[in-house]
Amino acid sequence: MVLSLDRLNKIRSIDTVANTMVAEAGCILGNLRRAAEEKHRLLPLSLAAEDSCQIGGNLATNAGGVNVVRYGMARELVLGIEAVLPNGEIYHGLRTLRKDNTGYDLKQLFIGSEGTLGVITAAALRLYARNDARCVVLAAVEDPASALKLFEFLFGVCGGRLQAFEYFTGACVDLVLEQVDGVQDPFPQRYPGYVLVELADTVDIEALNSQVEVAIGGSLEQGLCVDAVVSTSLAQLQSLWRLREEISEAQRADGPHLKHDVSIPIERIPDFMLAMETKLHKMEAGVRPYIFGHFGDGNLHYNVSRPVGADKSWSTTAGKALTTEVLNEVLRFGGSISAEHGIGQLKREDFLETKDPLELRLMLEIKKVFDPASIMNPGKLL
Amino acid sequence: MVLSLDRLNKIRSIDTVANTMVAEAGCILGNLRRAAEEKHRLLPLSLAAEDSCQIGGNLATNAGGVNVVRYGMARELVLGIEAVLPNGEIYHGLRTLRKDNTGYDLKQLFIGSEGTLGVITAAALRLYARNDARCVVLAAVEDPASALKLFEFLFGVCGGRLQAFEYFTGACVDLVLEQVDGVQDPFPQRYPGYVLVELADTVDIEALNSQVEVAIGGSLEQGLCVDAVVSTSLAQLQSLWRLREEISEAQRADGPHLKHDVSIPIERIPDFMLAMETKLHKMEAGVRPYIFGHFGDGNLHYNVSRPVGADKSWSTTAGKALTTEVLNEVLRFGGSISAEHGIGQLKREDFLETKDPLELRLMLEIKKVFDPASIMNPGKLL
Repeated sequence: MVLSLDRLNKIRSIDTVANTMVAEAGCILGNLRRAAEEKHRLLPLSLAAEDSCQIGGNLATNAGGVNVVRYGMARELVLGIEAVLPNGEIYHGLRTLRKDNTGYDLKQLFIGSEGTLGVITAAALRLYARNDARCVVLAAVEDPASALKLFEFLFGVCGGRLQAFEYFTGACVDLVLEQVDGVQDPFPQRYPGYVLVELADTVDIEALNSQVEVAIGGSLEQGLCVDAVVSTSLAQLQSLWRLREEISEAQRADGPHLKHDVSIPIERIPDFMLAMETKLHKMEAGVRPYIFGHFGDGNLHYNVSRPVGADKSWSTTAGKALTTEVLNEVLRFGGSISAEHGIGQLKREDFLETKDPLELRLMLEIKKVFDPASIMNPGKLL
Repeated sequence: MVLSLDRLNKIRSIDTVANTMVAEAGCILGNLRRAAEEKHRLLPLSLAAEDSCQIGGNLATNAGGVNVVRYGMARELVLGIEAVLPNGEIYHGLRTLRKDNTGYDLKQLFIGSEGTLGVITAAALRLYARNDARCVVLAAVEDPASALKLFEFLFGVCGGRLQAFEYFTGACVDLVLEQVDGVQDPFPQRYPGYVLVELADTVDIEALNSQVEVAIGGSLEQGLCVDAVVSTSLAQLQSLWRLREEISEAQRADGPHLKHDVSIPIERIPDFMLAMETKLHKMEAGVRPYIFGHFGDGNLHYNVSRPVGADKSWSTTAGKALTTEVLNEVLRFGGSISAEHGIGQLKREDFLETKDPLELRLMLEIKKVFDPASIMNPGKLL
């Protein structure tokens, strides 16, 4: 059974004083973002699927995306929720209050519960000031450790302006240039790694640009990056983003592959990447890891493509053992086997096997409180 | 029985790459703030009691404070929690990950649960970039509606720099000047209301000051405020803050009074204030409301002092009916009877009477999952 909320598609209110938006669950995320923008406000949740995904699903899965480093996950944008429980009762939690310390924060349970406790029908979301000044830097780095130092330095100087800090390997750039038309590499040579940084502010693009110039100058001087391009127009900004955004498309064009959406304690990413790559190549020579993701959140899309010449069935046969290895290594590094994509059916077995038994027991008992007959989204998550 | 966590007072780690701090529950908030500052980072939770309160208590009550408009409540600063359950089991949720979508977010239940589910023993907190540039504006406004418009305007222009937006009435200023030594009123006359705005940025105090000057110039021009002072030194900044911070002390010196920590949907504050004052004066002539608070969060400390000449026992006798009236009016306006102070014993009866029955039932059942024998903090909250 599939439940469609397509017709719950009304924006009930946008308030530029309280900075809130109340929207029904079936609203398309991109439409909500544009509606906020028209009122000079920002709904910061932004991800590749924003013009097809619905806000109800975004909240049920606690979506992430490219601006998490500044604005947090979907969870952090929620002030209130309306949901229908399995017995038909309505949870009337659609409050827009910023502060409400009256008991347990029940809405938090629905967020990220993947539809296992009830159906979210509407949400009150937090809006931010619109950023009319944007600047993107593409920096070439020697290795992930330099990328980390660059992050530390830029965060200290630019603070809240830093709204994306994405990392990808040179191999990703090669693949994008090979598989996707019209993408340009702004550098004359290939580097081991790249960092795409977006900075944004409410007003004054000149002040932002000059701050970025000083910060990048300092980074180059300290050897945190080895080359850098700063966007000077919106077209160039978008062109730089394409190098990052087309990686998934390039991998798709290259054929079936293993996807791992994992997170690692940020400071341990370089060690993880080194250890993981060594292990992969020991397990199977020629496998091609394409590593990219939201570095500033410790979130890597650690994808692995088949060796050149291997059969397309590889990802569902020989490759499967690699997935187990990747997830186990993530756990050894204190990470999470699902950073922003959730558990669903695909990771359910891994989840049930690896989650702390106490946490699992508490989750199952909470599930019983909301859904004693266990009719909500069976076979997913729990 | 009182449980002291005084000796759980170690900071386990501060990480300026991942921007996290792991601290034991008995750490004094002010010490944590200073430890972060030394590492050029900011722990944004800030409140009057910060040099005596402990972080464990701050999280168990989901504390608020003066910077919520920018950084959110205590809840939003928490990445992970370690807690002991009533049966002695340990919840090992002390993760520093920014993204971890693996099941229900159990830590959210402990935050704000007032010790009724378990005892928080340590927490992983999120750090921000340190703001070395600070600027405070004291603006005089005609009425709360103007204060709202000023908030909307400044938020749009200054965005994330806006880190406090406090409101207080002219009566509060009179009381502070009367009861507290050494506080200065920077204006030549009394105004109906005042807004204290703090703006802060990582670097470049000159850029911040000139932005503030332009913004305040625009506000005066549009009539959103009628007079304004901008701090030009740290001493003046602190002196302006005293006008706001000494209100509680001034009320204490004036004698016993009724305290109400409530929140209202921000856009309805002016209507609420008008309706409430009319009701109060109808109920008892001469009562003195002193209204101040975190306007940008919709959070008012709607305190009421006895009529001049009334007996000091007033707040525990005749005044009690006023409390009921204030809380009922708050609920009629869609607000919360406890914005940042929680329920505890004092508001327990009001809470149990007014909370939505479904929410109350879910809370009681969740309580049973964690604490089946109901031994945790009996008589509080639930």
